Amino acid sequence: MAEPIAEPHPPLLYLEDLTVGQRFSSASHRLDAAEIKAFAAHYDPQPFHLDEEAAKATLFEGLAASGWHTMGTTMRLLVQGGLPLAGGIVGAGGEINWPRPTRPGDTLSVESEILEITPSRSRPDRGMVKVRSETKNQNGEVAQVLISKLIVPRRG
Amino acid sequence: MAEPIAEPHPPLLYLEDLTVGQRFSSASHRLDAAEIKAFAAHYDPQPFHLDEEAAKATLFEGLAASGWHTMGTTMRLLVQGGLPLAGGIVGAGGEINWPRPTRPGDTLSVESEILEITPSRSRPDRGMVKVRSETKNQNGEVAQVLISKLIVPRRG
Repeated sequence: MAEPIAEPHPPLLYLEDLTVGQRFSSASHRLDAAEIKAFAAHYDPQPFHLDEEAAKATLFEGLAASGWHTMGTTMRLLVQGGLPLAGGIVGAGGEINWPRPTRPGDTLSVESEILEITPSRSRPDRGMVKVRSETKNQNGEVAQVLISKLIVPRRG
Repeated sequence: MAEPIAEPHPPLLYLEDLTVGQRFSSASHRLDAAEIKAFAAHYDPQPFHLDEEAAKATLFEGLAASGWHTMGTTMRLLVQGGLPLAGGIVGAGGEINWPRPTRPGDTLSVESEILEITPSRSRPDRGMVKVRSETKNQNGEVAQVLISKLIVPRRG
């Protein structure tokens, strides 16, 4: 009798498996005030990311996550199944915009779309893929748009 | 007898204080393997950022910091005196490139240059400033180039 085959992870995709317009969705993650302050203490120690009271008098008018924390959360969601690329998610660079801040209690998830696929001329084992990743909160509002240039291996 | 006036921090700069071509230098920070792995475990859990042995067989050929860790370190160096802007460092977005990875033991510092200054037409109390920030290692090699769009307040 055949055993059922467990498939807990999506199959990993190589350059040949990708098509322009292909879309992917991530799991979600809720950011609370403690996590927002802990990230900020290490990587962006400014009053509007560290303290509710101090944040009130700033441009943010209340505690907000560092944009780089929204980005780090996005990256983890992409790595943990949100963008199942063979070889992992290896970026050469990208463009990032934050249309609105992430607030304590926001639940973020990421929707990605393949924009361009460019096989490397000098390295036949890989290519460059441009991906647009929108990070939305629980109300469907866009907190971040990332256009990344990723290095993706070819099969074999 | 007059007391000497302590000035531990550089004066904070408003939009009117900035000029195109103006340059700033940050302090430096050394990234060790433990810090690289701790960041990766939270925000970029991939083998080449988490484990020396597993990293050998990857594109990185050894442990490397997440690009977002290089970015987070850059941000902290900018916040802690590397870019002394009134109102803090508040980004609307930017472009980022990583010409080379950051390795365990690398000491990073950031050199920034003001590229453009654009007073807001709709908000007379502020403007947008484009800044190029190069993050270099101890050998002067560029690990990251960030072009950021920052919101900077006008003086009172």
